[in-house]
Amino acid sequence: MPLTRTASTFRPPVMEARRWLDGVTFPPDRPLINVSQAAPVDPPPRTLREAMAEAALNRDDAHLYGPVLGMPALREALAGRTSQIYGGAVHTNQVAITSGCNQAFAAAISTLCGEGDEVIVPVPWYFNHKMWLDMAGVKTVPLQTGADLRPVADQAAALITDRTRAIALVSPNNPAGVEYPDDLLRAFFDLARARGIALILDETYRDFHAAPGAPHSLFEDAGWDDTLIHLYSFSKAYRLTGHRVGALVTSPARLSEVEKFLDTVAICPGQIGQYAALRGMQSLDQWLAGERDEILARRAAIEAGFPALEKAGWSLLGLGAYFAYVAHPFAVSSADLAPQLVRDQGILCLPGTMFCPTDDPAGASQLRIAFANLDAAGIAELFDRLRAFTG
Amino acid sequence: MPLTRTASTFRPPVMEARRWLDGVTFPPDRPLINVSQAAPVDPPPRTLREAMAEAALNRDDAHLYGPVLGMPALREALAGRTSQIYGGAVHTNQVAITSGCNQAFAAAISTLCGEGDEVIVPVPWYFNHKMWLDMAGVKTVPLQTGADLRPVADQAAALITDRTRAIALVSPNNPAGVEYPDDLLRAFFDLARARGIALILDETYRDFHAAPGAPHSLFEDAGWDDTLIHLYSFSKAYRLTGHRVGALVTSPARLSEVEKFLDTVAICPGQIGQYAALRGMQSLDQWLAGERDEILARRAAIEAGFPALEKAGWSLLGLGAYFAYVAHPFAVSSADLAPQLVRDQGILCLPGTMFCPTDDPAGASQLRIAFANLDAAGIAELFDRLRAFTG
Repeated sequence: MPLTRTASTFRPPVMEARRWLDGVTFPPDRPLINVSQAAPVDPPPRTLREAMAEAALNRDDAHLYGPVLGMPALREALAGRTSQIYGGAVHTNQVAITSGCNQAFAAAISTLCGEGDEVIVPVPWYFNHKMWLDMAGVKTVPLQTGADLRPVADQAAALITDRTRAIALVSPNNPAGVEYPDDLLRAFFDLARARGIALILDETYRDFHAAPGAPHSLFEDAGWDDTLIHLYSFSKAYRLTGHRVGALVTSPARLSEVEKFLDTVAICPGQIGQYAALRGMQSLDQWLAGERDEILARRAAIEAGFPALEKAGWSLLGLGAYFAYVAHPFAVSSADLAPQLVRDQGILCLPGTMFCPTDDPAGASQLRIAFANLDAAGIAELFDRLRAFTG
Repeated sequence: MPLTRTASTFRPPVMEARRWLDGVTFPPDRPLINVSQAAPVDPPPRTLREAMAEAALNRDDAHLYGPVLGMPALREALAGRTSQIYGGAVHTNQVAITSGCNQAFAAAISTLCGEGDEVIVPVPWYFNHKMWLDMAGVKTVPLQTGADLRPVADQAAALITDRTRAIALVSPNNPAGVEYPDDLLRAFFDLARARGIALILDETYRDFHAAPGAPHSLFEDAGWDDTLIHLYSFSKAYRLTGHRVGALVTSPARLSEVEKFLDTVAICPGQIGQYAALRGMQSLDQWLAGERDEILARRAAIEAGFPALEKAGWSLLGLGAYFAYVAHPFAVSSADLAPQLVRDQGILCLPGTMFCPTDDPAGASQLRIAFANLDAAGIAELFDRLRAFTG
């Protein structure tokens, strides 16, 4: 008797971590520092809230089924924006809107894989990717990374079998924060194309990339869409997590396969969120630039403060976008340490074990700190508490 | 090389049918009669639009991730409403909110089946169920129905194998309109329980059931949740198709499996739609009763007008909720007839072939007419055009 789809994977880490809060109280002068989820905690700017209210009140089509692949105006706007940022040619018929970026990944895999196929994923990985691969009956082939947490294309090449259908990368990386440079991404793209497999590149956090300009040059390649499946999310840029708006950018032929999946699990993305995402792209460039500046300032604060933690035996493995990926100095596994950090220090973060294969010892020494919601004072307080923690 | 998940199924029928409209023009005095999709074409009542606008403007949490299984207040309200309608005991922890009812079906199957398992589904079936089963690697075992389009539990019993995980019913039925009586549903429930499989019962159209009172007695059974997986949609009742709000009602243990699937394909249902659904249940009982009366009046108009069509060789196979399921008198397959109806008569409806196994000849003589958006004049016009059609 085969395992059911859901029995073949683990429980959602974020919900699991929330359960560690049960029964723990936090004094008012020492509230919980929640660095567990990569999500804005503030609502979107007024102009987006008003756009949603206006659509709800005055636009009849905001309440009706829309096209499976998303609102044409939003697809067109994202095609234009992607072309503009990356300096390539991306057309409206290469863009689908999805109910969040997780769904875009699931849709991509569904067009690439059948039972028993394989996808190569660098470790540490994003747990929802692993969960979907498990549920899709796809074998996740871990690609180890070195001290810099960057995957190496040549090492991936050695893992490709006749069942390999894709390599899936996330840059800036979740959980490690690392921004993959263009030559790294180009090497993976060339490898994937040469071997006739797909390169899935999840760029959920690209709006917070530290480098100005295009995050990579892959879209400049004529025919990029024979290999590249680019994923994007409107959730982080415009604080729309509660509205579920993401995107998948690839060939029109693949999108007609994507359409089957999306029709069946979603029918269409929610309309109100699509109106908000469109308004965001039309009017919030300057605001988003300010958001990026703020995230980069927080990143700098992490970097500046970390030497004090190093003296206590911690190390900073990766840093970028929303995330610091760190190694703790204690003999206990991060799986046990993380709930203890809630009780002892009022810090909720996710252990590295949630981002690694169960037989991989690395995760036990690692923690992901999603710092994006902490201002300078919050980061200082986080460091104080971590320094005070004795395991 | 196995088929990819999406290659194992067909293109979305509703999108396929929309393509028949390409290049066809409809004179202003003879507009298209679109009876292809089971969806309200009017927006929701003002109170819901205002609830959504209010949430967008004033509720910060309407923009943030919510719990994977849905907004607690909405789960509680639906538990209460389900208990009230069906006369059983349904608790909040037995209810999950999903991004539409298709997603609820996909989630249910993911908790029940692995590769190569089987689910028994009466013919004609709802195509998105078939598509998901295909993509999940699950074999759809067709259960033939007789002239009344009602499945028979004893016949289903003969199809159960050691790979069977569930029987999936839709009542009122899509596409056939038929309302399954309590004794029929009870026989399926008893069969499923006796054989240790699940009964999935999709009641998307239950608010338009012709019989007053509880549609069935299954929830009265203590321990109903060891067998029953009840699916519901807010889309039809409150005209919220563009917001994707459905529900899955079953055991807490199964919901903790459902949570894995929903976390990975959706993270959470859209928040604004959940606010609207909650407001709908709190304030629109009387309005919904009026909606039901109107649908029942339209159903009566179909019934009253059909004898004239019968003279032209048509027959009415099933009627209820949003649907009339009819047999045409022509020698040509409905798959060819349906696009011809667009061109010749300005009628868009779906052919029976979209609801049947490809090797089943029955679908070729059948058409589904989703009449819910046609008022009395529209129904009269539909009948006139069908009578004028000569194949």
